[in-house]
Amino acid sequence: MISITVLALGKLKEPYMRDFAAEYEKRLSAFCKLQIVELRPAPLPDAPSPSEIDRALASETGRILEKLPSNAYVFAMCIEGKETSSESFSQKISTLAASGVSHLVFLLGSSFGLSDEVKRMANERFSMSQMTFPHQMARIMLLEQLYRAFQIIGGGKYHK
Amino acid sequence: MISITVLALGKLKEPYMRDFAAEYEKRLSAFCKLQIVELRPAPLPDAPSPSEIDRALASETGRILEKLPSNAYVFAMCIEGKETSSESFSQKISTLAASGVSHLVFLLGSSFGLSDEVKRMANERFSMSQMTFPHQMARIMLLEQLYRAFQIIGGGKYHK
Repeated sequence: MISITVLALGKLKEPYMRDFAAEYEKRLSAFCKLQIVELRPAPLPDAPSPSEIDRALASETGRILEKLPSNAYVFAMCIEGKETSSESFSQKISTLAASGVSHLVFLLGSSFGLSDEVKRMANERFSMSQMTFPHQMARIMLLEQLYRAFQIIGGGKYHK
Repeated sequence: MISITVLALGKLKEPYMRDFAAEYEKRLSAFCKLQIVELRPAPLPDAPSPSEIDRALASETGRILEKLPSNAYVFAMCIEGKETSSESFSQKISTLAASGVSHLVFLLGSSFGLSDEVKRMANERFSMSQMTFPHQMARIMLLEQLYRAFQIIGGGKYHK
């Protein structure tokens, strides 16, 4: 069973978001060893300057790199990443697993995303939409796409 | 204040989805006259044939057309629609409002989407992602993008 780690900056604040995510976490447990790792975002003032944002992202970078399992295949979630259909995404997971990758990591930044260093270090940059979604909503969308990917691989009727 | 109708096939089933949507509905009420109209999807068996799906979509088409306000600018949400960034989406809404459009309608089908007739009748086909999301999640994503669009137009700091 493949391991999947979602490494996310920040918590799901609202109960309805936690319940939503929990539903897909429960469903995914039948298909992968899923782990959600939440890191505390670097504190920022209300209207941060570009350099304050850079420093915050840099301080998050070190903590992200520390948590990265070795030999994992890493997706950095960012709006400039490559978009793909749900079918191609499931194919990608299937191909990675077949080529011996046993651990996938999805990195989700907080409001200001991920540092360039993290993005460069990742195996790929991945985007679910040209639109900007709140990072908490993006986590739920990602869990849904992972569940959908396993349903597509298994030929389930969830994906129509 | 512009009117926005989200005309959706089916209900939000889970309490966490309803709470999630309600949050954005509440926030949107400051920016537009928002109405969510839910139509009952045509009943379908568990593993419907293509012709059963076509008949269901056709029966939904008539009910969708009946509910369409006249003079509305209609977006049909479908995966083959045009994708856009959140910034361009907000620009679109702003341009439509400036050109005298007072009512926007967003059509969201159920699991099997919308009929070709509905898609042809719409002013545009609009997609939020190359990925397939559940229609109930798509409704929440759309409400978030509408709220984000008004925040971008108003220069709020929600959109970074």
